[in-house]
Amino acid sequence: MEGPVIREILLELPSPSLDDQRADEARVRQELTRHLGEPPLFTLSALRILPEVLRPAFRLKARLGFDGFHWWVLDFLRSDEDLPLLGLGIDLGSTGVVLYLYDFRKAEVIRKHSFKNPQIAYGEDILTRLHYADKPERRRELHQITLKTLAREVRSLLGRLPRRSLLYYAICGNTTMSHFFLNLETRHLYREPYIPAVSWVDTLKARELGLPGHEEAFLFVFPNRGSYFGGDLLAGILASGMHRREEISILIDVGTNAEVVVGNKDFLLATAGAAGPALEGGILRCGMQAAPGAIERVRIDPQSLEIQIKTIGDEKPRGICGSGVIDLLAQMFVAGLIDQRGKFVPERLPERFREVEGELAFVLVLEDESAHGKPIYVTEGEMKSVIRSKGAMYTILTVLCQSVGLSFEDISHFFIAGSFGNYIDPEMAVTIGMLPDVPLDRFVPLGNAAGKGTVVFLKEASSFEELKRILENLTYLEMNVRTEFMNLLTGALFLPHTDLSLFPNVARKLKLR
Amino acid sequence: MEGPVIREILLELPSPSLDDQRADEARVRQELTRHLGEPPLFTLSALRILPEVLRPAFRLKARLGFDGFHWWVLDFLRSDEDLPLLGLGIDLGSTGVVLYLYDFRKAEVIRKHSFKNPQIAYGEDILTRLHYADKPERRRELHQITLKTLAREVRSLLGRLPRRSLLYYAICGNTTMSHFFLNLETRHLYREPYIPAVSWVDTLKARELGLPGHEEAFLFVFPNRGSYFGGDLLAGILASGMHRREEISILIDVGTNAEVVVGNKDFLLATAGAAGPALEGGILRCGMQAAPGAIERVRIDPQSLEIQIKTIGDEKPRGICGSGVIDLLAQMFVAGLIDQRGKFVPERLPERFREVEGELAFVLVLEDESAHGKPIYVTEGEMKSVIRSKGAMYTILTVLCQSVGLSFEDISHFFIAGSFGNYIDPEMAVTIGMLPDVPLDRFVPLGNAAGKGTVVFLKEASSFEELKRILENLTYLEMNVRTEFMNLLTGALFLPHTDLSLFPNVARKLKLR
Repeated sequence: MEGPVIREILLELPSPSLDDQRADEARVRQELTRHLGEPPLFTLSALRILPEVLRPAFRLKARLGFDGFHWWVLDFLRSDEDLPLLGLGIDLGSTGVVLYLYDFRKAEVIRKHSFKNPQIAYGEDILTRLHYADKPERRRELHQITLKTLAREVRSLLGRLPRRSLLYYAICGNTTMSHFFLNLETRHLYREPYIPAVSWVDTLKARELGLPGHEEAFLFVFPNRGSYFGGDLLAGILASGMHRREEISILIDVGTNAEVVVGNKDFLLATAGAAGPALEGGILRCGMQAAPGAIERVRIDPQSLEIQIKTIGDEKPRGICGSGVIDLLAQMFVAGLIDQRGKFVPERLPERFREVEGELAFVLVLEDESAHGKPIYVTEGEMKSVIRSKGAMYTILTVLCQSVGLSFEDISHFFIAGSFGNYIDPEMAVTIGMLPDVPLDRFVPLGNAAGKGTVVFLKEASSFEELKRILENLTYLEMNVRTEFMNLLTGALFLPHTDLSLFPNVARKLKLR
Repeated sequence: MEGPVIREILLELPSPSLDDQRADEARVRQELTRHLGEPPLFTLSALRILPEVLRPAFRLKARLGFDGFHWWVLDFLRSDEDLPLLGLGIDLGSTGVVLYLYDFRKAEVIRKHSFKNPQIAYGEDILTRLHYADKPERRRELHQITLKTLAREVRSLLGRLPRRSLLYYAICGNTTMSHFFLNLETRHLYREPYIPAVSWVDTLKARELGLPGHEEAFLFVFPNRGSYFGGDLLAGILASGMHRREEISILIDVGTNAEVVVGNKDFLLATAGAAGPALEGGILRCGMQAAPGAIERVRIDPQSLEIQIKTIGDEKPRGICGSGVIDLLAQMFVAGLIDQRGKFVPERLPERFREVEGELAFVLVLEDESAHGKPIYVTEGEMKSVIRSKGAMYTILTVLCQSVGLSFEDISHFFIAGSFGNYIDPEMAVTIGMLPDVPLDRFVPLGNAAGKGTVVFLKEASSFEELKRILENLTYLEMNVRTEFMNLLTGALFLPHTDLSLFPNVARKLKLR
């Protein structure tokens, strides 16, 4: 199935006569069959407007949607009528939700909007929400607040664009998010043996969930591969295109967890592990999400030790986000402000080191330079957490590659997704030993890969088949039960690693210092 | 696709474990695929109850419905749960509506119910209703009163049977009825060149029409072959099975119109003509529908001229229904009370002939023998109308056969459908020259063939394909434009015909007199 999941086809039909008494529907169906190569189906609302739209010119535009099996006529317009042709990609994150309004005619995202997941009111972390949802009426509550908020935000995103023009939804989220979204049982998701209610969701109508748009608009919910490998990751794979390549690539998605997939068109091996929060800036006292005022870049001159920062939106700094933390750790390391074992070296720059709540801290921004008049700092303990996280990430990558008998050199691309995916500086991530020391051009930032995957879905009706193939090819590797993980982790808890031969370029840089 | 459109399948599944973490849906889908030979799809409501029904036994019953392309899981029951498995066939006649509640497990109709079409309040005849419906809000009014009444009658028919057990609707009606039912544009139906909005309606959900039953229940509306050949007739063909036979048969449906189809598995030729009302008892002053008290059988001894009648329900007579009229005409003719040209012969039985409103009438039931204390009679003029109708019917049959180069001897079966289909005595119909003089065992009464067709649909999922093939094979012959019709009609306006050699058995009977 080539092309997007929505099509608009202009038809010019012969007028009926006593010699051609075909019903309006039959007349249109036969012509559409010629265009599509297969007969489309008709929704009731399309049938209801057809005779009116068809006459008197017998020229019209048919708007069709693909449900994975058939093309359905969703709407008809007069040939001279102009109405946007829209789809909506949704990344339903457990923290934030991102909407992508896709214009099928322009073939591009025309509006983007993000907002906080309203479930946060029921618990910051997913497990709290899952516990809460153990009772069906509470699960419905979580479901309803999600849908109500989503519907409101979609209406606001559409603004003055006619609801009728929105014909397709594609939504992804982790397995828990999908279950809350559909109001499916979640009790077995987080209890051994961790069973989702659904893996593959057959295409629904948006009205079944009460979402705005055309009354016949389709809704596709990305499938999952178990409780711990959700639709957001499958969307990420789809966005990366790694499942179509001959060469082997790795997809790295750092959210609350670190999720990693290695593979190509023939196989996909995935795993996940706790590596995330510190890398996202989440556990830092001065950490913040990637938003205006967040420090996203740090440079420290190894000689003069002069500090330069760059914030999102070039505003006065308010805190540090994920990419800023990685930069900071790398720059402190190269400048000798933190040693290989993660110990601060205050004697290199005494004026920047202070004691905070009984702990040694490095002050990145002094109080008079910040937006809030308070210093922005990291403590030695916090940096140790970051190092543990980066070590875990590196170890996950190592175990995953080893388990399929590959070395990092065999990997053609490293796709970097996640909330910091657009901003991470691969060179800095390599410097701290979070990512392997391979040529930098192998790192490909994907940004919000999950969200992009939903847009890819809208763009390419073949995604139905591709997602099915991805699910078939995908094996999940339980990282917790791998004994080599703990052995390998030890070496990765150094900067960049106990075995410097694994990081020749970093070693060279350190020598230059 | 063999078997009915609804199936219930008992599944026994392996329990999930850390080694088998398939989602509930995937576990069930894989097992159902084994049963069906193809993967089924899942409705949202089925997904919502699956985890609860599945646990703890991992035994359940899946209830599936076929939409013409796929099997859909509509519901799940625990393995020990017992719930009826029902479908509803509906014959939406322009005068009366008949409901057939079909039990898929017993494979039989368990309840039947009929009621007046509420559209009658907007006009006895269809054309009046069509005129009324020229404005969209009035068409909606007709649609809504139809659906509201239908929903109420279905609820009453179900009684205490759980709504959840009703999983499929199959409805047929003439083309106008289908359009009102779906609220489709009807303005072009009765204006040249007579174009329906729809011919083939893709399977809908009953909830889209607000009909009671399971929330995922399917709704199939029989297709039509143009404004004048509706889904009721296609249902009749389906019920007769003539479209599957090697031998050629004729299907005769006398409603308000006479509709006739000739053909077999390779071809079907249909036509329609005005032949009906008189044959249904509709235009007679003492005529009535086939209901308790209606005279359905008449016998007059040719020698003693003793009159015997039989009423429906053996109640005191109230009027004459269709089969009674045909019997009466035949018996009067054989007894010499009416001559070959349709003229009454009062001198044969003077006490039974009277003048009513200036016209000669034959009194079948005297005032003291009837239910209402009034005589039940037919006038000479009324009998002439009946003779015109029977002549038209015979002529339609003749033209239809001639147009495919067949004689009546080539027809293996004459299926007699229509509101009098169960009751008509073929021998009497042959005697008056309405049906051809062939061996009587070739006449097969079908009763309400349209209603039976909806039940056949529920019973046989292959009906989707059969209806498509019927539509492909069906040609419609415009009777009005056949010049031979008027020529042939003249001879058929005699009893039984001017050419007695066409009715050798009737001629023999007349000689015996």
